[in-house]
Amino acid sequence: MAAAVAPIPLTELHGSLSDPLLDAMTFLNEVTERYPDAVSFAPGRPYEGFFEPEQVHEHLDAYLAHLSGRGLSRAAVRTALFQYGPTKGIIADLVARTLANDEGLDVPAESLVLTVGAQEGMLLVLRALCADQDDVLLVSSPCYVGVTGAARLLGLSTVPVPEGPDHGPDPEAVVTAAREARAAGRRPRALYVVPDFANPSGASMPTPARIRLLEVAAAEGLLVVEDNPYGFFTREPGARPTLKALDRRRQVVYLGSFAKTCFPGARLGYVVADQQVAGPGGRLSLLADELAKLKSMTTVNTPALSQAVIGGMLLRNDCRLRQANAPATAFYAANLGTLLSELERHFPRPERTRLGLDWNHPEGGFFAVLSVPFTADEAAMERCARGYGVLWTPMAPFYPAGGGERRLRLSISSLTEPEIVAGVAGLARFIRDEVR
Amino acid sequence: MAAAVAPIPLTELHGSLSDPLLDAMTFLNEVTERYPDAVSFAPGRPYEGFFEPEQVHEHLDAYLAHLSGRGLSRAAVRTALFQYGPTKGIIADLVARTLANDEGLDVPAESLVLTVGAQEGMLLVLRALCADQDDVLLVSSPCYVGVTGAARLLGLSTVPVPEGPDHGPDPEAVVTAAREARAAGRRPRALYVVPDFANPSGASMPTPARIRLLEVAAAEGLLVVEDNPYGFFTREPGARPTLKALDRRRQVVYLGSFAKTCFPGARLGYVVADQQVAGPGGRLSLLADELAKLKSMTTVNTPALSQAVIGGMLLRNDCRLRQANAPATAFYAANLGTLLSELERHFPRPERTRLGLDWNHPEGGFFAVLSVPFTADEAAMERCARGYGVLWTPMAPFYPAGGGERRLRLSISSLTEPEIVAGVAGLARFIRDEVR
Repeated sequence: MAAAVAPIPLTELHGSLSDPLLDAMTFLNEVTERYPDAVSFAPGRPYEGFFEPEQVHEHLDAYLAHLSGRGLSRAAVRTALFQYGPTKGIIADLVARTLANDEGLDVPAESLVLTVGAQEGMLLVLRALCADQDDVLLVSSPCYVGVTGAARLLGLSTVPVPEGPDHGPDPEAVVTAAREARAAGRRPRALYVVPDFANPSGASMPTPARIRLLEVAAAEGLLVVEDNPYGFFTREPGARPTLKALDRRRQVVYLGSFAKTCFPGARLGYVVADQQVAGPGGRLSLLADELAKLKSMTTVNTPALSQAVIGGMLLRNDCRLRQANAPATAFYAANLGTLLSELERHFPRPERTRLGLDWNHPEGGFFAVLSVPFTADEAAMERCARGYGVLWTPMAPFYPAGGGERRLRLSISSLTEPEIVAGVAGLARFIRDEVR
Repeated sequence: MAAAVAPIPLTELHGSLSDPLLDAMTFLNEVTERYPDAVSFAPGRPYEGFFEPEQVHEHLDAYLAHLSGRGLSRAAVRTALFQYGPTKGIIADLVARTLANDEGLDVPAESLVLTVGAQEGMLLVLRALCADQDDVLLVSSPCYVGVTGAARLLGLSTVPVPEGPDHGPDPEAVVTAAREARAAGRRPRALYVVPDFANPSGASMPTPARIRLLEVAAAEGLLVVEDNPYGFFTREPGARPTLKALDRRRQVVYLGSFAKTCFPGARLGYVVADQQVAGPGGRLSLLADELAKLKSMTTVNTPALSQAVIGGMLLRNDCRLRQANAPATAFYAANLGTLLSELERHFPRPERTRLGLDWNHPEGGFFAVLSVPFTADEAAMERCARGYGVLWTPMAPFYPAGGGERRLRLSISSLTEPEIVAGVAGLARFIRDEVR
């Protein structure tokens, strides 16, 4: 028998595979699996109590009935569900209607590309916009690891723009970062930002900062890539407009996701890219069409099955997901409230200050950030899991340029209220013991 | 109102978007849409007559019942279907059983990664194996455009290895190409090949050539990336072993797809990557685990919905797709036979030679290649569509280094026998008129 080929040295594979970020993510997943009974403030996954397997059948049937109702023959319905489909997707019309109803976003269906989660959308947008190694993406920091990871996979550089303490990226810091990048001979192409309840910081941009951000981005020649997975889930009445809703210049590329508003298992996201692209002879196309060309080289098209099930969900909710998500919004808002009030109860003001402890007060979303007077690294996380039955996420991996060593992220999205109460109690004991 | 930002020059977006290959593909799609009533030998999509929408429900229920039968609680079933899932997928065990039954392939489930179509698998494998610009991928030429496209998206170079007339890549030509690449300072990392009924050539490698290919690849330090979408669909009894089934050295990375054996709308494929990777401190992992790390940056995970439906199909067929596909195999074999015999009937031997016309005789699959005595380009294709109601695919875009200008690809997969008879009649008139 022939000898197996020698193991491939990891160092001979693509550099992204040796990125400490990936190791950190792998470690966190392993720890989470090793402590299945811990109260986990770690995962950013939605609560499952709102899902029922039976509903998949009903959603699918609703979509198929919709196609028949539009006059499609049985054969055409079969084609839509089972065949390769258009690269841009088959439910762009329903998504556009939902965006109009829920966000006041008036975008033509042609400017939409349905993607395999928002993650694929990020990859496509980064690939399209960054022509070579000199092109850089500004990212608000701390930053969702999916973006820095996608950039690494493509061999692209990111430039962190530090967030302020509570309100997301400071528009003036964006100007500074863009100018510094240009002075260093790079071309800043776009800014990636989560204006609503960011992952990991939980921060949200006030409306004036949003307006100012669009102004400075236009002045600096930057597109804005807005990622909005959490916008629905607010503790405060009256949602702020998305950057895309404020966009009068077609300067915002919008990444959407149904992972939190419908369910993650469909892996359905989308990009709104209504920017114009000038091809040979000045022929104009939409950036969405260029993204679709790239998509034919990543996944060919988004599963029709996923689109049909989510399409059915949209139809059954009259293309109004905000309303359909009212119970989920109330649930997450209550959970975040419980987290913050339990932290307050365990660490009231004078003691909190004495201990060097603090946390932010997000207005919604899944996440809050706790600043602690010790290194909140993987070892600390494992001590907390083993000794106190509580899991959380170290913040340092979210800082592309370092930082965040004494911060940890707490997610409330997959827990019940009693779990949060018990989890904060365990966390409080851990913190006191660490400080001691 | 603020002025819209200026259109983005296409030349300032990533270079892959200006690739003539993409324009060619876009043009072909447009022409196909403009002539919906033509007999189309163009698309490589499976025949839809075997699909019924109702079956989706039954497949899904079968998979959910399987999970319950394995003792999963209702909550755990809900998690599997609706949540984010493991990056490597949830039905690797079922796919591994199917590979054992159908291909005699004995691979551990841990070496599998479920992907969004084989296309995502290609992207991940190319990204993992090619560490930098000096690393090149050898591709048998003519070559499936999805591979050259994925390489372009990642900024990687491909080196074409010319196929022989009927039998796929010549192993000695692989040696020559690998040595030339090394002499030019590049590192050839792998060879991409479709040994069974290749797209676009229809060619298949004889078993001795397969064995020899594995020998020379091992000697040259090349991995072999085997793509096998069409292996089931043979006109000859007795399938040849896949390269992976012959692999005793763990030198073959195998790309599989359910697009043709189940249905494309699930967009489900997989990679078998049982190679060992040596990380820091000599810690061994499977290449599959490294691919999964990259996948977390492309699509996070493959839709559970797609996996559940295909998983149900596998279960309902006792993890034996070859048997389940017997009617499809007979259908495609009959179609290919009809195509070849109709070509023969319209162009018998002495006349065929006089005209300078020829075609190959694939033993199976979806495709045959016709060599014609005129340029079979996009303009010719449109003349044929407009004047004769017949569509086909120019071969030139499949040759990464040029060539194939007088060849065209005929696909029989989505047609019925009467359509093929009528299509060849129209094609024969077109050819005679072009030659005249």
